[in-house]
Amino acid sequence: MGDGNTITIDNLEDQVGKVVEQTKELQEEALALINKNATDEQSLRQRAQSLDSSICRLRSLIDSLLSDKLLDPKLADKLEEELQKARCILSDGDAASFLPGKPHGRFLKMFLGPINVRASRRDIQLKVKEEYNSYRDRTALLFLLFPSTLLILRSWIWDGCLPAFPVQLYQAWLLFLYTGLALRENILRMNGSDIRPWWIYHHYCAMVMALVSLTWEIKGQPNCSQKQRGVQLFLQWAMMQGIAMLLQNRYQRQRLYTRIALGKAKRMDVVWGETAGVHGQLWVLCPILFILQGFEAYVGLLLLRTAFVGFVSEWQVIFCGILLVLMAVGNFLNTVQTLMAKSRFKAKMKRSKSKQEL
Amino acid sequence: MGDGNTITIDNLEDQVGKVVEQTKELQEEALALINKNATDEQSLRQRAQSLDSSICRLRSLIDSLLSDKLLDPKLADKLEEELQKARCILSDGDAASFLPGKPHGRFLKMFLGPINVRASRRDIQLKVKEEYNSYRDRTALLFLLFPSTLLILRSWIWDGCLPAFPVQLYQAWLLFLYTGLALRENILRMNGSDIRPWWIYHHYCAMVMALVSLTWEIKGQPNCSQKQRGVQLFLQWAMMQGIAMLLQNRYQRQRLYTRIALGKAKRMDVVWGETAGVHGQLWVLCPILFILQGFEAYVGLLLLRTAFVGFVSEWQVIFCGILLVLMAVGNFLNTVQTLMAKSRFKAKMKRSKSKQEL
Repeated sequence: MGDGNTITIDNLEDQVGKVVEQTKELQEEALALINKNATDEQSLRQRAQSLDSSICRLRSLIDSLLSDKLLDPKLADKLEEELQKARCILSDGDAASFLPGKPHGRFLKMFLGPINVRASRRDIQLKVKEEYNSYRDRTALLFLLFPSTLLILRSWIWDGCLPAFPVQLYQAWLLFLYTGLALRENILRMNGSDIRPWWIYHHYCAMVMALVSLTWEIKGQPNCSQKQRGVQLFLQWAMMQGIAMLLQNRYQRQRLYTRIALGKAKRMDVVWGETAGVHGQLWVLCPILFILQGFEAYVGLLLLRTAFVGFVSEWQVIFCGILLVLMAVGNFLNTVQTLMAKSRFKAKMKRSKSKQEL
Repeated sequence: MGDGNTITIDNLEDQVGKVVEQTKELQEEALALINKNATDEQSLRQRAQSLDSSICRLRSLIDSLLSDKLLDPKLADKLEEELQKARCILSDGDAASFLPGKPHGRFLKMFLGPINVRASRRDIQLKVKEEYNSYRDRTALLFLLFPSTLLILRSWIWDGCLPAFPVQLYQAWLLFLYTGLALRENILRMNGSDIRPWWIYHHYCAMVMALVSLTWEIKGQPNCSQKQRGVQLFLQWAMMQGIAMLLQNRYQRQRLYTRIALGKAKRMDVVWGETAGVHGQLWVLCPILFILQGFEAYVGLLLLRTAFVGFVSEWQVIFCGILLVLMAVGNFLNTVQTLMAKSRFKAKMKRSKSKQEL
């Protein structure tokens, strides 16, 4: 068969025997290849790990020598740069897949079981990252369209009173979306992305909130506008988040491409918006982010107020209110931390640049 | 570093240079290994595929020759057995990971993106399968405990009227559980399991139902028992399903181990209960499954009745009713199909056995 023989009744038995034989051979070769690969990979894995720890040790040694003034600052800068280059090759090159991955998170284990989601090849890891970015682009658009359509229809057709079904459809979509994002970000993390853990926790919170809001009765008449004040605010906040997400995605990509070009970033870096900005653009994005976070907290507090004043006294309202405030605080703290890390990095760059000019 | 040299200020520069050099070497070796693996695997993949199609061709040739009476039935049986053995080696041995996988389903793509969830090694595939089985064991127990606790508390403490929160908690758990099961089964399918597609669709339906039931208001007083009739029936059905799942899991495992021992089954076979049974046990399980399916349809019809008689007129009730009836019909058809396939297989086995005795 493999050699193109035609089958006749006469040689049928031979052909069957041949196929059986070839299958056994294939099985043996497959086993041998798999075992050989395992050995080769194990050795690369050990070497990658030992190099990684060598780089760390040398770096901390240089730092301590520098602070004890036992080392010429110029030499220290040069050595640090060399080590940084080695680190980039190790963690962004083909050897990266042999570095130990982050431990399998509980979230992934819960949903997927113990399956390995780490891509063994760098180009596939990058494809996953690319796809994540375009997924975010697509969802950001829906994130803007969905709540704005609801709000427009509310004032044009529904006489200021949202019917339950479309709102619940939206909440179910949010639940699905956040679950997908959380799963994908966990997978990216396993593949070596440096995404801050908070942005993943943030999506867990958002999942819980979407779930809770599904059980939340959408009150109709009488006093519809008063009772639906929470839903309305939530939709407005979601619209703003849609706009911010679109801007972030644009800037993030630009920044990522620039940084890849400069060799500064690992290409698996994903930062949920907040470290954004090709320099100037940061000044546009930051105020938007802070306004968004303020509005998030404001919506949370309003929800708490409606619950305590007594229009709506379900536990869901209080729960969502507290969650929104917590999320806003967490977002704010993480954005500030990222900005500070950014400015420290910039100061260091400037320092080393001015030294080189001297 | 790798050779255990101690670092001093004097040889610091050398050490850094050495690390950079070693990193570059590692990067090149990693790239070479990855490329070589890709070539080797590609060749094995082609051979596995061509052997697979050879086996198929030979099988259909034997069948057609046999029906045209051009082949001695005894010889045909012998050849078929040989081919079956080759098929088993190919699809259950180490070469299996080189056979083309099922295409990435839409469900996995939606939640996880384009990441590869196929284990490259057979032992890992089997670990995934094992973990899936024990996950089902754990959840089956909860499946029984959760609704029975609710029903017991209802009559003992809550005076026949279920409060909303615990029921919603249960529904959220169901949603989470079914999503996890659907994801895991899709992953198993990618890893070569022959799970019937219906059982995965069944979990999609169950996911939708759990989602819809979350938006379904749990009515309290007045007329609590009348309005909660649907919820109560649903819980009773869930309890029965818990018992059936526990029985199924037990029998499935036994059957799987027996079949692995006999070399009949690929070890990645997962059959959601319904093909169960080490012979005698089938006569216990089958009636339970049919009763369960009947009860599922009954609950669906009762929900539809309550909706049309007018106690509860929300769309959720009608939707869940229709979904339950559809699921019951699908389950029934698939169970019958599996039983028929089983009896055909048995008849064939008997035929070939009696021939051998002749």
